Amino acid sequence: MTKGRLEAFSDGVIAVAITLLVLNIMVPPPRAPGTLAHKLLAQWPSYAAYGTSFVTIGIIWTNHHVMISRLRQPDRAILLLNLALLLWIGVLPFATNVLATYLKQGQGEHLAAAVYSGSFLLMALTFATLNHHILFTKTHLLVTPIAEQRRRQILAFSVAGVAPYAAATALAVVSPYVTLAICAGIAVFYATPLGSGGSEPSS
Amino acid sequence: MTKGRLEAFSDGVIAVAITLLVLNIMVPPPRAPGTLAHKLLAQWPSYAAYGTSFVTIGIIWTNHHVMISRLRQPDRAILLLNLALLLWIGVLPFATNVLATYLKQGQGEHLAAAVYSGSFLLMALTFATLNHHILFTKTHLLVTPIAEQRRRQILAFSVAGVAPYAAATALAVVSPYVTLAICAGIAVFYATPLGSGGSEPSS
Amino acid sequence: MTKGRLEAFSDGVIAVAITLLVLNIMVPPPRAPGTLAHKLLAQWPSYAAYGTSFVTIGIIWTNHHVMISRLRQPDRAILLLNLALLLWIGVLPFATNVLATYLKQGQGEHLAAAVYSGSFLLMALTFATLNHHILFTKTHLLVTPIAEQRRRQILAFSVAGVAPYAAATALAVVSPYVTLAICAGIAVFYATPLGSGGSEPSS
Amino acid sequence: MTKGRLEAFSDGVIAVAITLLVLNIMVPPPRAPGTLAHKLLAQWPSYAAYGTSFVTIGIIWTNHHVMISRLRQPDRAILLLNLALLLWIGVLPFATNVLATYLKQGQGEHLAAAVYSGSFLLMALTFATLNHHILFTKTHLLVTPIAEQRRRQILAFSVAGVAPYAAATALAVVSPYVTLAICAGIAVFYATPLGSGGSEPSS
Repeated sequence: MTKGRLEAFSDGVIAVAITLLVLNIMVPPPRAPGTLAHKLLAQWPSYAAYGTSFVTIGIIWTNHHVMISRLRQPDRAILLLNLALLLWIGVLPFATNVLATYLKQGQGEHLAAAVYSGSFLLMALTFATLNHHILFTKTHLLVTPIAEQRRRQILAFSVAGVAPYAAATALAVVSPYVTLAICAGIAVFYATPLGSGGSEPSS
Repeated sequence: MTKGRLEAFSDGVIAVAITLLVLNIMVPPPRAPGTLAHKLLAQWPSYAAYGTSFVTIGIIWTNHHVMISRLRQPDRAILLLNLALLLWIGVLPFATNVLATYLKQGQGEHLAAAVYSGSFLLMALTFATLNHHILFTKTHLLVTPIAEQRRRQILAFSVAGVAPYAAATALAVVSPYVTLAICAGIAVFYATPLGSGGSEPSS
Repeated sequence: MTKGRLEAFSDGVIAVAITLLVLNIMVPPPRAPGTLAHKLLAQWPSYAAYGTSFVTIGIIWTNHHVMISRLRQPDRAILLLNLALLLWIGVLPFATNVLATYLKQGQGEHLAAAVYSGSFLLMALTFATLNHHILFTKTHLLVTPIAEQRRRQILAFSVAGVAPYAAATALAVVSPYVTLAICAGIAVFYATPLGSGGSEPSS
Repeated sequence: MTKGRLEAFSDGVIAVAITLLVLNIMVPPPRAPGTLAHKLLAQWPSYAAYGTSFVTIGIIWTNHHVMISRLRQPDRAILLLNLALLLWIGVLPFATNVLATYLKQGQGEHLAAAVYSGSFLLMALTFATLNHHILFTKTHLLVTPIAEQRRRQILAFSVAGVAPYAAATALAVVSPYVTLAICAGIAVFYATPLGSGGSEPSS
């Protein structure tokens, strides 16, 4: 198994998942009451969830690329952890849809928000696990040796992404809007130079 | 982050988005009144919107390739602007569906047309911004230096694409058919040699 | 524009279109009358249309690869003809769905069959046009010069694929089953060594 | 036809098929009775079928890569067998949906389970056939010669995957849950080092 084909397959799954997100934005039925403007505005949760998920998946793709670029060649354990990561990414169109559908229902919105950020949490946990496996267990598969301090730094950065998702999931009990806002905030943070700690792709 | 993987991911998202457009063309329900011929003809807005969006995305793909080919290596800002561009391309199946659904409804059709051309407008604006960033801010990342006059010419060509989409969006107030016609005209124009100004891929 | 990225984008669109075909096979609603076995058997037109379209797109992909492999580099006209080819391939999930939905309706089934084979006809016509353009107009873009006789032979083979689709479309007036059978027959024929005339990929 | 493009196309189809699986997990309609928690839990068959199909397709992708990596160049027969393999993989989102929809219906669930594992069975049979064709009929197309004993060993491993799917399909008469459990077990088995017999991608 060459690294190239692992990247190609991962790119494919991530590209399809990010593009399928749009299927969650429904065209308002013409027969429903109200003007189109009203109906389009009323489904703003769909747009917020779409944007947040799109940027999050885009950043995961970037970080995935940086993580794999350190690897000379994958082994079976890496393939399986990568498959688990793709499985959680593949779930995101569903989780996004759950949030968009229930955010304003006045029923189930807390659980829907927990499903949403919980999916990101599982994705972030799997990402950190895979990163740990590459950096600390399979060091002989690295392209070039990396000093232990630097490896700890990179891993700490990966693990740091887990905490806010855990917080967002816990806070779904309080307010689903807070959960969505934290998830959006994480996406914005990782998009800034500040949030590129262990993974600056180039200078 | 190598250029190759940026291209592969962008190609993937664009290929999925362009192919998802077909999901907007509904098979007429057999139980609805009228012959199949009548029902298929009645949904001509779906075909017009499909064709226009398909050709537009195809041309954006071509121009995206030419733009990225000038780049030696992407940096984080370029990755993020590219992600924003992909986000707007990803929205197009939804925007296409809105227009196709409402064009003949006699209700909401003006707004639907504005959503349609407005999505192209945002895509064109992001494209021009990304092109400006590559050509004028990150000149050290270019494969080969480009004379400033030539860079201005290329950018002017990118920016020129923005105006007709702005006009099409504004004219949605007058007639959604005019908006669709302008969008289709832009696609046809850019498909001709005349419309290949700054971006002739080869001779 | 390098040949590699043209191939990658075409592969992406074709891979998505071929995989979207499955969305046309509906899961029978549990509440509809009859056993699941009966309901699954009743929708055999979906399976026949799925198989025929899948194999046809797979063969077009093979032949597309052989056609492009002769090319050193695409130019704008080739890009646009290729985009037109992808547009017709992108329509196939819709055309397949029309046939599967109407074949047994006792209403509209003739037109549905004509839409189905007509889409293949347009695809085959565009393929032959693109092949003609590459082989006779843009000979300077070929990887290696090809003797005129051989080029005529290759083109004849491409054009030969058009006639049976025209026949299948015309015969939709007589029977949609005949149309489907011809389309399936063409797919089988091109899958055999006999049907690989101008385009044997290797020995 | 180069090996590279065969891999790229196969990767594309498999990546799209694995990601389309998520479309089978429905967002529970807000108006249906019961809490969201109850409704989400009630559709656990969707999650079980999603996870099982996702891991199975992921493993088939890995094994497909190993199989093709032994090949110097594909010929027409290999292309066609590969297309047949992709056809069965393309069917899996439908088969997964059938099982998820009917597992708890108290009607049609036995047949639904047989459709599910039967699709895996056809996929495994086609995989073994393709592997046999590469290893025993087209030995001149191998990258490096492989000792006959080793080839038998690899093929035996491929064929061994067929039996449990046949058993799972037969046992659908007894219980659809047993069928699902066997399919999930096969996925888990092949994911372990134990199940990587003939196809360890690296050490």
